[in-house]
Amino acid sequence: MVLIDGKQTAATIKAEIAQQVADIVARGGKRPHLAAILVGHDGGSETYVANKVLACKECGFTSTLLRFEDDITEEQLLHEVDKLNNDPDVDGFIVQLPLPRHIDEQKVIEAIDYHKDVDGFHPINVGRMAIGLPCFISATPKGILELLQRYEIPTSGKKCVILGRSNIVGKPMAQLMMQKQYGDATVTVCHSRSTTLKDECRQADIIIAAIGQPEFVTADMVKKGAIIIDVGTTRVPDATRKKGFRLCGDVKFDEVAPLCSYITPVPGGVGPMTICSLMTNTLLASQKKIF
Amino acid sequence: MVLIDGKQTAATIKAEIAQQVADIVARGGKRPHLAAILVGHDGGSETYVANKVLACKECGFTSTLLRFEDDITEEQLLHEVDKLNNDPDVDGFIVQLPLPRHIDEQKVIEAIDYHKDVDGFHPINVGRMAIGLPCFISATPKGILELLQRYEIPTSGKKCVILGRSNIVGKPMAQLMMQKQYGDATVTVCHSRSTTLKDECRQADIIIAAIGQPEFVTADMVKKGAIIIDVGTTRVPDATRKKGFRLCGDVKFDEVAPLCSYITPVPGGVGPMTICSLMTNTLLASQKKIF
Repeated sequence: MVLIDGKQTAATIKAEIAQQVADIVARGGKRPHLAAILVGHDGGSETYVANKVLACKECGFTSTLLRFEDDITEEQLLHEVDKLNNDPDVDGFIVQLPLPRHIDEQKVIEAIDYHKDVDGFHPINVGRMAIGLPCFISATPKGILELLQRYEIPTSGKKCVILGRSNIVGKPMAQLMMQKQYGDATVTVCHSRSTTLKDECRQADIIIAAIGQPEFVTADMVKKGAIIIDVGTTRVPDATRKKGFRLCGDVKFDEVAPLCSYITPVPGGVGPMTICSLMTNTLLASQKKIF
Repeated sequence: MVLIDGKQTAATIKAEIAQQVADIVARGGKRPHLAAILVGHDGGSETYVANKVLACKECGFTSTLLRFEDDITEEQLLHEVDKLNNDPDVDGFIVQLPLPRHIDEQKVIEAIDYHKDVDGFHPINVGRMAIGLPCFISATPKGILELLQRYEIPTSGKKCVILGRSNIVGKPMAQLMMQKQYGDATVTVCHSRSTTLKDECRQADIIIAAIGQPEFVTADMVKKGAIIIDVGTTRVPDATRKKGFRLCGDVKFDEVAPLCSYITPVPGGVGPMTICSLMTNTLLASQKKIF
């Protein structure tokens, strides 16, 4: 069994990006610039954005953090998005979600110039990905693809079962895994309504679990030699931890790991790869490699 | 075994649309207007566009056919698209594919205002469909959904196997069948690289065959009571026919039909539904029901 080390892989990728940026700047090129809009003071969002700013530093990017209070109007926020769209120095930007209830998230996402949509949430990028055209692929699916590639895990023709059908993981992951230029696998998407979920899992060469239920995937659901990618990150109360909780994956790691050929741990598997994808997308944006 | 009558269903839907249009016009509303751009003289395209014009007539729509010779430049064609985008009387329009080789099809598709993209090929519509937002759904997948609904075939939680991963059938069909608000099924997409294709089919409650190989699905691949949707329309030489060919589906109908609970024939199944979807989309566009 090989433990897929997302933390190490992410560090390697960030070092590769930093080297590329140093080369670009040495040749007189432009330093990539990622901006982030953060509205309000949600604890999770604060952490995510802080980590993104930190990753920018590690990669040698310029970063700009624009903070607004919870009472910003939709109109004001759309104006800020527009300013970033038109700022020639900003290569890419994100609007950290969730937004306050009085703001239409989808409207804000669609207001972002898709050339700068490094989160890959704009329908144009989602649509282009589905059709197989160059686009910004969203962070988590892109990170998983990267792990599979870096560990040279064959996926073509394999049976890949995806648990969960969310817009940010399950659905895009399915689209990527079925396409010839990406996973090229036979893809099955299971969800809360699936009556044959366990049977599907038992037949799977690859399981990508993104269902958000701690320890949902148990040993009896896994074929010997399977590859397991665990996207779950549920916070489970844990008094022994300083923060009062621990992150729990969708896979019962202790009993499943011995059966697998490859498995990602939680934490330290898929998680660290997501910010990495954002950095890669920002570099691609600054180099005009996608559009 | 129930034979799903696409021809009759399409006639019913067109009559329903015609009634709605008559009501709208009687109330002083605007008659829906579909325009089509046809470049060159490809036999298939001529037939498709002629059928679309005919369907407009049956539905009480205004239709405009803009014809151009093969030597139209990309720039000229983009200019024509722009004129339709800006024509307030045109509710929706299509550019009949394929286009001559010197024209970038994707560029033309993306030049269409997505509010008028009744073919549903613009990445914004593709992306919005993937995310589950209101959009124009492309003709064939929409027609299949409509058949399933009109025949009250339950899909929620069922195992649906889709054969083929084309951008116009397999991939969008998968996206629709997995979403809660549409098929809500457990979806598997198989293709040329799938090693377990036959096993997947044998377990399927619903098979949607869009692989383009005549009589590919045989009796040994079908579970008793399965629902079979045949999207194949390969032209097979047939000297006994006036045209010199017959349309052949992806399913070996004679041996598969007795096993099924429902099956679509070829021709007369999915085929007639596609133009119907275009008419429905045009009515929705004229009523501003999507955007």
